[in-house]
Amino acid sequence: MTEMNRRITLAQRPVGPVGPECFAVDEVERPSPGPGEVLVEVQWLSIDPTIRGWMAMDTYLPAIAIGEPIRSGGLGTVIESNNDAYPVGTRVFGMPGWQQYAVLGGGLQVVPDGIEPEAALSVFGVTGLTAYFGLLDIGRPKEGETVLVSGAAGATGSVAGQIARIKGCRVVGIAGSDEKCAWLTDELGFDAAINYRTDDVPSAIRAACPNGVDVFFDNVGGDILQAALGNLALRGRVVLCGAIAGYNVTEPRPGPNNLTSLIVQRGRMEGFIILDYLPRADEAIGDLATWVLGGDLTYAVDVVDGLDNAPLALDRLFTGANHGKVMVHL
Amino acid sequence: MTEMNRRITLAQRPVGPVGPECFAVDEVERPSPGPGEVLVEVQWLSIDPTIRGWMAMDTYLPAIAIGEPIRSGGLGTVIESNNDAYPVGTRVFGMPGWQQYAVLGGGLQVVPDGIEPEAALSVFGVTGLTAYFGLLDIGRPKEGETVLVSGAAGATGSVAGQIARIKGCRVVGIAGSDEKCAWLTDELGFDAAINYRTDDVPSAIRAACPNGVDVFFDNVGGDILQAALGNLALRGRVVLCGAIAGYNVTEPRPGPNNLTSLIVQRGRMEGFIILDYLPRADEAIGDLATWVLGGDLTYAVDVVDGLDNAPLALDRLFTGANHGKVMVHL
Repeated sequence: MTEMNRRITLAQRPVGPVGPECFAVDEVERPSPGPGEVLVEVQWLSIDPTIRGWMAMDTYLPAIAIGEPIRSGGLGTVIESNNDAYPVGTRVFGMPGWQQYAVLGGGLQVVPDGIEPEAALSVFGVTGLTAYFGLLDIGRPKEGETVLVSGAAGATGSVAGQIARIKGCRVVGIAGSDEKCAWLTDELGFDAAINYRTDDVPSAIRAACPNGVDVFFDNVGGDILQAALGNLALRGRVVLCGAIAGYNVTEPRPGPNNLTSLIVQRGRMEGFIILDYLPRADEAIGDLATWVLGGDLTYAVDVVDGLDNAPLALDRLFTGANHGKVMVHL
Repeated sequence: MTEMNRRITLAQRPVGPVGPECFAVDEVERPSPGPGEVLVEVQWLSIDPTIRGWMAMDTYLPAIAIGEPIRSGGLGTVIESNNDAYPVGTRVFGMPGWQQYAVLGGGLQVVPDGIEPEAALSVFGVTGLTAYFGLLDIGRPKEGETVLVSGAAGATGSVAGQIARIKGCRVVGIAGSDEKCAWLTDELGFDAAINYRTDDVPSAIRAACPNGVDVFFDNVGGDILQAALGNLALRGRVVLCGAIAGYNVTEPRPGPNNLTSLIVQRGRMEGFIILDYLPRADEAIGDLATWVLGGDLTYAVDVVDGLDNAPLALDRLFTGANHGKVMVHL
């Protein structure tokens, strides 16, 4: 009997918000690994804003082809192996895409025993590395400085803010509900939080950052970026991690009209892609593990059950329904 | 008989283009230097875009007060001295403002014999330092990279582009007339030039920079910044030197809508203020002098005669009438 592989594929490219018309479900024959490859049974999928970009166009990776499974990070178990580095039974993290089974080549990360899948996919995964290297390598916060984080209740933002706290900074988060703001201040130790849906963001930043913003870790872009630039401290740094405010728009929105504050304040705005940092993952994971085990670093996960619900999981990122790292449990 | 001092003062703050209503002319009693001060007879004024900002609002320096002389760099001769560092007869560069005589304190730069005032005010002055440190310290071009310069026929841009050429880069300039473009390529050794008034700038950049823009030295901002961001090479750097396109607008214009290219390309955009680099002036001037004397670095000056014509000289910067460094000869 032929084993089947259920997949969620790209039916059409999104224009504006990602609707159900963008996806198709199919079942194809389960693939077999070639030389050097392994077959992975996928158990968890990492749901990230960048997936929307991959669906729409070429970015730092080529666009997903129509008819192919949605590209996605994920965790699974090797069930057939032609690669001695990943024997049957090994838990690996890679890019299986939205499907039950994936043939994967090299470059897989072995997930050690003792690490929960939820942690492997969030704080010890790309999310945690993004927060770590974005904040420390690009933002370079110094003790006593003020760090502002947008998307602060999201997977990356919540970790970035906590790392800033651990490094002795004053930390202010921007999030989309009072409940998220309370979580930031009461549970994660942020010094202040701003609800962008109800607060006047520019004046709230000014009030919460009386000495200006030394580091802005931005996941959002748009008006929030403009508000942060307007409150930049001398030699302030803007870490462009993401710009989720603009991912779903059909016409590019105007950018911040106050980039000259980068001149006046001698500021720096810099983007990064976490793929470039993967060779340095171990230095981050060592620190992150120390902080998690020591109780200094908390992470939240937002688990959606079932492969077929992956499109709904992606949508949670753009509506802001999520609280922490969105992942799908197959 | 009391000696008088003719001054051009700030009558009102500009809203939009700087018109004659912004200026007043008066004659006041010639001031006398206090302890440690000198009286300078002003011979040359440096006319810079940043003056418009000082007239309008607080920036990296407090706004000029209404009724005070327009703040401006300038060169003059000490005619009364209470400071042994600057005896009578010394030629100095400082910030005398738009007036015939100025009392100045410390921090003056002595202009050595053998340096023409036109050179002291341009290539060896703040203009040359801005080009030098902005390009080399912020832009950090490497041999073989492509450097794009906006405002390339201006005082700073023309020097920045030539320094990039000297450092072994491919250099492309953006300017506002065919005659300026010809000057860049034929006289200054730029590899290509783009006329932003007649060319489609995004596609012209793409054609002139087939491997993308490694360093964009931006004096202009606005649409030209957006076009450059759209052609940024991997790990490209944007040096925010000025944003003259926006200085005269009454409503802030939207910024570039493609800042996410800084994420995708791992780009860096950084501003600077040359005042921060003045302690390092000697290292720049040594190199600049070597290049000028060796015939590698050409500078152009745009001299306007007469103190009363200083407002017209300032206007030349914004209409693009100038060709090289604008200065007023009293």
